[in-house]
Amino acid sequence: MDIHAYIKEKKSLIDSELGKYFSPDKNEPEIINSAMKYSIFSGGKRLRPVLCIASGEMCGAKIQDILSTACGIEIIHTYSLIHDDLPAMDNDDYRRGKLTSHKKFGEGIAILAGDGLLTKAFEIINPKVVKEIAVAAGTKGMVGGQVVDLEMENTGASNSLASKKLEYIHIHKTAKMIEVSVKAGAIIAGTSRIKINSISNYGMKIGIAFQILDDILDIIGDKKKLGKSGSDTKNKKLTYPSVYGLDNSKKRAKQLVESAKNDIEIFGGKAAVLDGIADYIVNRDY
Amino acid sequence: MDIHAYIKEKKSLIDSELGKYFSPDKNEPEIINSAMKYSIFSGGKRLRPVLCIASGEMCGAKIQDILSTACGIEIIHTYSLIHDDLPAMDNDDYRRGKLTSHKKFGEGIAILAGDGLLTKAFEIINPKVVKEIAVAAGTKGMVGGQVVDLEMENTGASNSLASKKLEYIHIHKTAKMIEVSVKAGAIIAGTSRIKINSISNYGMKIGIAFQILDDILDIIGDKKKLGKSGSDTKNKKLTYPSVYGLDNSKKRAKQLVESAKNDIEIFGGKAAVLDGIADYIVNRDY
Repeated sequence: MDIHAYIKEKKSLIDSELGKYFSPDKNEPEIINSAMKYSIFSGGKRLRPVLCIASGEMCGAKIQDILSTACGIEIIHTYSLIHDDLPAMDNDDYRRGKLTSHKKFGEGIAILAGDGLLTKAFEIINPKVVKEIAVAAGTKGMVGGQVVDLEMENTGASNSLASKKLEYIHIHKTAKMIEVSVKAGAIIAGTSRIKINSISNYGMKIGIAFQILDDILDIIGDKKKLGKSGSDTKNKKLTYPSVYGLDNSKKRAKQLVESAKNDIEIFGGKAAVLDGIADYIVNRDY
Repeated sequence: MDIHAYIKEKKSLIDSELGKYFSPDKNEPEIINSAMKYSIFSGGKRLRPVLCIASGEMCGAKIQDILSTACGIEIIHTYSLIHDDLPAMDNDDYRRGKLTSHKKFGEGIAILAGDGLLTKAFEIINPKVVKEIAVAAGTKGMVGGQVVDLEMENTGASNSLASKKLEYIHIHKTAKMIEVSVKAGAIIAGTSRIKINSISNYGMKIGIAFQILDDILDIIGDKKKLGKSGSDTKNKKLTYPSVYGLDNSKKRAKQLVESAKNDIEIFGGKAAVLDGIADYIVNRDY
C-alpha cells in the first residue's frame, strides 16, 4: 500500500471536483468567487476529504456518492481558516506562504468569503450527513474550539486549567471535523452502527494526533515547507508542546495513532488505507 | 382574518422553539451561547419563519414538520445581521435599540456567533430543503447581495449603473431568503411543482417590497420604533428612495404586493394569510 500515491490520486480527484463548484456564475459577484477560489486552491493537504473518501470506500460506498460530501468538508475547513486568520482572531498575514484572505481582499470580503464557503458546503453535502457535519462544525464542535482558543490566547497559562482547555481546543477545533470526515463516509456507505462507532473513534484519535503534530511542527518544522512562521509562539498560544513538552507530545501522538489503528482492526485488510493515513499523520514533516 | 393576531401567535410559537435550540450545553462555551442568544432574542419581527409556516400550512403541512426549518431560516437571518453590522461591513453600533454583537462581545466573538448560528441552522433545517436554503443564503443569494452592497457603499452614485446594482442587492440580499422561506414551507408540504413556483413568485415580490419599505422607513420612519438612526443615509448607501424618490418607491412596493397576491390566487380562500402578510409588509411603520 503506497499511501503517498493513494493520497496524491484522491487529492487530484478532489481538486478537480472542487474546481467545478467554483466555476464563475453570472449571478455571483466576481470578487467573491475569486476570494473563495483563492483560499480553496492555496495548497491544502486535503486530508479531511481524503479521509472521507477512504472511509467511504472501505465501507463499500461508490466514489460518486461520497465525493461532493468530501469536498463540502474541505470547504468548511477552508472557511474556518479564513475566519481564524482575521485581525479579530489570530491576525495572521500569511498562510501556506500566501497572503491571507483579508490581506489580499480586505476584511469585509474575507468575512463574506468565509460565510459563502460555509453556506456552499451545505449546498453540496449529502442530506444524509448534513446534521452530523453541522454539529461537528458548530458551537459544540469546531466553532466552540475556536471560541476557547480565542479566550486563551495571550494568557500563556501553563497549569492544570491550561491542560484542560488545551484538550477542549484540540478535540473541538480540530478532531471533531476529522472524526466526522470518516464518519460521514461510513454513514453514506450505509455501514452498521457499530462499525460507524469504531470509525468515529479512529477519527477522533487521529484528529487529536494531527493537531499535536501541527503544534510540534509550529516549533520544529521547516518554516518554508509550512509556509508560515511559528505564529503560535508569537501569539503565546496554548499548544501541546507548551504544556507537556516536545518529547511527551510526540509520544502521545504515536500512542493515539496506534490506538486508532486498533479501533478499525475489525475491517481487516480493508483498513490498510486508513492505517496508512494514520501513520502518515504522525510521520509528516509539514 | 386578523393578520396581526396570526403573526403574534406564530411569533410566540417560534420564540419558544428558538429557546429550545439555545439552551446552555456543557459542550459549548458559555460566552458563545450568550452571544448567539443575545442576537436571536433582540426583538426581531420573525417575518421569515412566519412566512415559512404560513406557506406550509396553506399547502397542508403539519406545524411540527415546518417549525424547525422556519427557525433555521430565522437563525440564518440573525447571523447575517451580526456579520453585516461588523466594523469591516456597515460598522453599526446599534440595532433595534441594542448594542450590536461586536460592541457587546467584541469582534472575534461576534464573528464566531455568526458562524455558529449559520452552522446551527443547517443542523435543524429539514434535509429536504437544505440545498434550496443554502443556495438562497449563499454567494448567488444573500451573501452575493451583501458583497455588492459592500462594494457600492460610499460611492453614492445615482445613475443607471446604480439602479442595476440596487436591483441586484434587493433581490439577492433580502428577497431570495424571503422567497425561500415560503418555498421551503411548500416543498416540505409536498406541493406540486406549479404551486411551488407560484409561491416562489409571491415570495420574491413581497421580498423586494419588504426591502423597499425598509429603505423608506430608514428615511421617514420613527427612529424610536426602528431602534436605529437612519444609517443608510449616514453611509451614503444605495437605497430605493435615493435612486427613484420616495413617492415612486411607495408606488412600486404597492404594485409588487398586488402582483404577489395575484400569484397565489390559485389557492383561493386558503391564501388569506399570505395575502394579509403581503399587505402588512407595505403598511407597516417599523
